[in-house]
Parts: sequence; structure tokens; C-alpha cells
Amino acid sequence: MSVTAASGFVASGVHAGLRRSAPDLAIVRSVAPATGAAMFTANRMQAAPVVISKEHLELAEPQAVVINSGSANAATGLRGELDARATAAEAARLLDLAVEEILVLSTGVIGTRLALDKVLPALRTAADSLSETGGADAAEAILTTDTHAKQAVADGPSFTVGGMAKGSGMIHPDLATMLAVVTTDYPLGPHEAQEFLQAAVEESFNAISVDGECSTNDTVVLLANGASGTTRSVKSDSAFDDCLRAVCADLASQIVADGEGATFTAEISVSGAASDPEARAIARRIATSPLVKTALFGRDANWGRVLAAAGSAPYNGGYAQLDPGSVTLDLAGVRVVDAGAPQDVEPELVGAGCTIVLDLAIGDGSASYLTSDLSYDYVRINAEYRS
Amino acid sequence: MSVTAASGFVASGVHAGLRRSAPDLAIVRSVAPATGAAMFTANRMQAAPVVISKEHLELAEPQAVVINSGSANAATGLRGELDARATAAEAARLLDLAVEEILVLSTGVIGTRLALDKVLPALRTAADSLSETGGADAAEAILTTDTHAKQAVADGPSFTVGGMAKGSGMIHPDLATMLAVVTTDYPLGPHEAQEFLQAAVEESFNAISVDGECSTNDTVVLLANGASGTTRSVKSDSAFDDCLRAVCADLASQIVADGEGATFTAEISVSGAASDPEARAIARRIATSPLVKTALFGRDANWGRVLAAAGSAPYNGGYAQLDPGSVTLDLAGVRVVDAGAPQDVEPELVGAGCTIVLDLAIGDGSASYLTSDLSYDYVRINAEYRS
Repeated sequence: MSVTAASGFVASGVHAGLRRSAPDLAIVRSVAPATGAAMFTANRMQAAPVVISKEHLELAEPQAVVINSGSANAATGLRGELDARATAAEAARLLDLAVEEILVLSTGVIGTRLALDKVLPALRTAADSLSETGGADAAEAILTTDTHAKQAVADGPSFTVGGMAKGSGMIHPDLATMLAVVTTDYPLGPHEAQEFLQAAVEESFNAISVDGECSTNDTVVLLANGASGTTRSVKSDSAFDDCLRAVCADLASQIVADGEGATFTAEISVSGAASDPEARAIARRIATSPLVKTALFGRDANWGRVLAAAGSAPYNGGYAQLDPGSVTLDLAGVRVVDAGAPQDVEPELVGAGCTIVLDLAIGDGSASYLTSDLSYDYVRINAEYRS
Repeated sequence: MSVTAASGFVASGVHAGLRRSAPDLAIVRSVAPATGAAMFTANRMQAAPVVISKEHLELAEPQAVVINSGSANAATGLRGELDARATAAEAARLLDLAVEEILVLSTGVIGTRLALDKVLPALRTAADSLSETGGADAAEAILTTDTHAKQAVADGPSFTVGGMAKGSGMIHPDLATMLAVVTTDYPLGPHEAQEFLQAAVEESFNAISVDGECSTNDTVVLLANGASGTTRSVKSDSAFDDCLRAVCADLASQIVADGEGATFTAEISVSGAASDPEARAIARRIATSPLVKTALFGRDANWGRVLAAAGSAPYNGGYAQLDPGSVTLDLAGVRVVDAGAPQDVEPELVGAGCTIVLDLAIGDGSASYLTSDLSYDYVRINAEYRS
């Protein structure tokens, strides 16, 4: 399943002791020589594993990924970088790979040192238990406040794409505390993985929001080992692209649905903006507005808050263009504002989620976003996280 | 008291019926001819009263301000503008002023029409009850989810500055659902009020955050009528400037302390940034981070979240400059990170609030911000606001 669904991948998940009782250390490895790519958080406070993994990616194609939960190894200074290097070195030794072929990912509390005395011995156990059926264990070992593992698989005509992800708080564009590893037995050349991955991430992991936060550790990795024996063509490339996007979108929507304290989700579509980036700024602003999100939690169709958020979407040092007299807004399928004129209607927010469809009638820009509500539980989870 | 503390100002607050039982309509008027200025929300979804008041300010010096709570008259289309105009026209008739000498301010639910059948008759009652002791009534009538009225006074050597404000949610830079009226008997020329006001607002109302929202209605008004008879000098101008800043700062801090559900506040100071605007972007990002704010609610000195927020401060299409290796952070007076190296300490968050002092050691940019925590009550208040 999941990250071991494609041929030639093995994985494992074990308990190192960074978390009290849950599994907290995972390895994913390609058995056949792989090519790969990764995308990282844009946060300036990049965690040590991000710094080290970026360095490794410049030197070699990644063959294995080591992931720990329980500690983000972020804001840990130079010591943190040494700890990340030591983890990669031990994994390389155990897996008989070059250190630069290892990517290291961490998630958990920021500002505490990675406990090497727990990680290093556990790495041996994890390496020893690598198997083609280890995907589910790996998917469990990378969780933090998630309530369940997130896995996805898409089968192409002659290949498979599978993946696992972690993330429930701090979810936001530019990859916020979210880790994902996607594997495929489709063959990709050395520099091709990045391009495919970037396009898929843009419309999946970068178009979701739980709380508007952007973490120090977010990373999405793609490994491709060609073990399916597929012969490439324009058609198969396109099929692979579809599968990769499907897996990323599936994992992203699982993350939003499992957003910290989430009880309701909203699919936001913005059209008619001056440009795509402006549409995106507006969709993102709606998706991260505490007032919109608390209204969703209260199942209150308070569409005025949606417009207030839309009108204050940061863009280019000001706010994205919007003309109050021309906006049309549909909430949960009901037209609440028609070309600037409020309609005397009251949509009902029922079920698991709703749609928010905003047409600005200015230009051709459009964008979509997926978000969750802001509940008591979000506050509880994050007020108590460390205790 | 407050908005009637300075000579030559009268005010009143009455119950029009826009809110169930609370007073909801206020008038503030200068008896002597006044000059004035106002600053408005930067939200693109500007409410009708904002549109109308801006228009009036271009035509004349403001002499009176009419404020209603219970309805924001925002996202109400052309009808909303007509309702705001009708309110101003009736006030002008009752007060024997030109319509363009009236500013109209509204706060409350977005997207519902202003009930003129309630506002117009109540305006007569409000006009009839204008008095030099009416400041406290006016300060009550402009509240929404505020738990108490906000008033401030500063006495200069020979003049007085007084003010009232409203705001507890949606508080954010660029004046987010916050209304304030400041009056003074200091003499100011026609175009001088704007300059003084702008400087004072920048470091007060524009440097606070409750939930990062920016409303459709925010307005700060300054009226100056010279009724103190003060003769102006460079020295008296400076004293007036000090008093104005003091009143604005006092009102702004009252707003944060009364932030929706607020149980704890934080004074954020950022120094050593590449520039003042970058320092401001970082301070604002920390001030609006849900993870920082929930940690404050939990009295959890989770300083990693402060750095994660600081590292992802939107600036110029990217993030403000920050070098993880050089940041120094003091939380509640305890150094938790020294030049990039985490210290093994655990600050205690006790009392009513704490300080967050971040030095980036890059340049000379600095900025301050005041924020509140994110509590269960914030969610409750905003999930239930309309019901």
C-alpha cells in the first residue's frame, strides 16, 4: 500500500522513543536506482533536515528518505545540522548508500534537539525491517497531531504512483508542516522529477490551508525508479502526470479533512480576478480568515465575512483588485450576492463541507483552495501541544 | 470624559433598535467650527458609510460624526449607499449643518441593510440629547462584541485631547473593524489634522492585532475646534502631538486587552531587521500567527512557533529577510535563543501578558506590535456571532 505500492520500493516504521508510545521513525527506500526531486518550505527559519536535504539533492539523486516525528530539529542551531548529518550518515551506512543519497525529514516540536541516542539505534531496527509491505507502518510513523495515516495510490496503465503524507496543523501554501513522500515505478530522467512534482504540488499541497501557518520543515519528496519497465511516450508521460496529480490531490484533501479540530471543509473557487496570482491571493485570504473559519465552525452562512476577507487579500504590497459593485458570490450553492447586490437568502451549511464560489467580474484570473473550519479543538490542540 | 473632554464638543448615545437592548446610535459634534481628518480601512470591500464619508471629507471640514452599531452597512450595494446618505442628510437637517459636514460610521453585521425606519427617528432623539457630558453614552453606543467602553483623555498645558473607540474582533493593521473618534480643542488648520492623525494612527491602531482581520468599516476620525483658545507654537504643536499619540495608544491598547476572548496579551518588538517595513512585516506575522496565539492562550512558552512565524512574514512577494543563525529571542524577559543557538531555559508566562523581543542582527529596521491570545472564547464569539 501507499508508499510501497509501486514496484521496487521498501519501507518501515518503528518506535525510536521520540514520541511516548507511537511509532516515530520511518525509512522509505528504492531498491532499484532511482531519480528524485523534492520541494521544501519557503520559511526562512528552515529546519536543519531541510538544509541538509537540499545540500544532498544538489549532489546526488535521492535513493532513500529517513523521517522522524516527535522533533522538528528546527531552531536548533549548528548542533541541529550536525544531528541531521549524523542521522543521514548512519542511514547511509546501514543501507549501503552514499550519504548524499539520503534525504532526512523531521516533524514535531520546534526548538528541541533531536535525540540521537534514540534515533541511531532505532535506525538499525528500521533498516532491518524494510519490506514491500512496510508502507502502512511508515505512514503511521510520520504522524504528529494527525488522527490517522494518509495514504494514496493511483494506478497507471503500466505503472503505479503511491504516496503517504503527514500534516494537520500549520497547513498552508509554501508547504507548511506537511511531509509527503511519493514513489513511482515510472521511469524519469535525472532532472525530470522536479518539473512533474512542482506542477502537482502547486495545485494540491500548495492550495490547502488549515490555519495559514507555514512551517520550518515542510517537504515533499518524489522518488522514481522505473521498476515497472514502462517504455516512455508522450502519452505515458501524460498518464503519469495525471496519476501524480491525483495522488498529491488525494493526500492534500486528506490533510485538510484531518485539519486540527476540523469539523467542516470549504472548497473555495475564485474567478474573474485581474490575474491568476490575484485570484490565488484572494482564495488564500478567504481560506485563512479566522472569521470565515469560525463562521464555518458555527455553520453560519455569514457571507459578509467572505467578502470582507476577499477585499483584504495582500497582493503586491497592497490588496488584490476587487470591485464591490461587481462581485457575485455563491455560498453552498446559493447565490447570496449578485453583481454587488445582496440577495435576501440564507444558505444552509450542512453535511461535511460547502463550496464558496466568488466571481469578481474583473478579468480572467482564477484559483481554487481547500480549507477547514476553526474550532474549539484547534485551540485546545494547539494550546496544549507541548504539555 | 472621553470624546467630550475637550471644550466645545457635545455627544449623545441612544437606542435606535438596531441592537436588541443596547444603545446603538451615537452623535459627536463640535459646537465651534472645527477642522478634521479621518483615516479609513484599506479593505477593497469598503462599506457604504466609508464611501460616503470619504466623499464628504473631500468637500468640507467635518463638524459632526454619526455612528451606529448593529449593522455595518457593508456589502449592501447601491441601496446601502443611499441609506448612508439618508442618515447623513437627516443628521445634517437636525444639526443645521451641510450634509458634507457629517461623517457616518457603521459597525456590526456585514451584508444586512441599515434599518432606516429605526435610525432616522432615533437620530432626532440623539440630536436632542447632545450634551457636554454625553461622551460616555456615545462610547457605549458604538460597541459590538466589546465587553466595555473604551475612552481616553490626555491634557496638554492649555488644551485637551479626548477620544473613544470600539473594536474587539477583526482588529488588524489598516484599521480593521475598529472605530475611533478623537476630539480636541487645540487649533489646527484645514490640512493639518490629517498629518497629525496619520502619524499617531501608524504607531497605535495600525500596530495592534487581535485576529489578523481587516474590516470593511474601520475609521478613525479627528476633530479639532480650537475652543481652548491656545496660541500655537512649535512647542505647543509638539505637546499636542504627544497628547494625540497618547490617546490613540491608550485606546489601541484597550482594544487589544478587550480582544474577543482575550486572556493574555503580548508586546512584540522586532529589531535588527533589514528595514523598518520588514521589521513590521515580521512583527505583524508573529502577532497574527494562530499557533503563537494559541500557545499564549495555553501559557506555553513555545518560542519555536515565534521563530517559525518570523521566518514566514510575507514581504514584497516573498518573505522578509531572516538568518536562522543570527536571531536572538527573548520571551517574557528570558533569552531563549542567543545568536541562533537555543538556550536550555523555560520562560514562564504568567500575569496579564508578556514581551516577545526578537533581534535579527541583519540591519537597523525595527517595529512594535501588540497582540492578544487566541482562546476558546474567540471561537465561540465568532462562531455564534449572528445567532
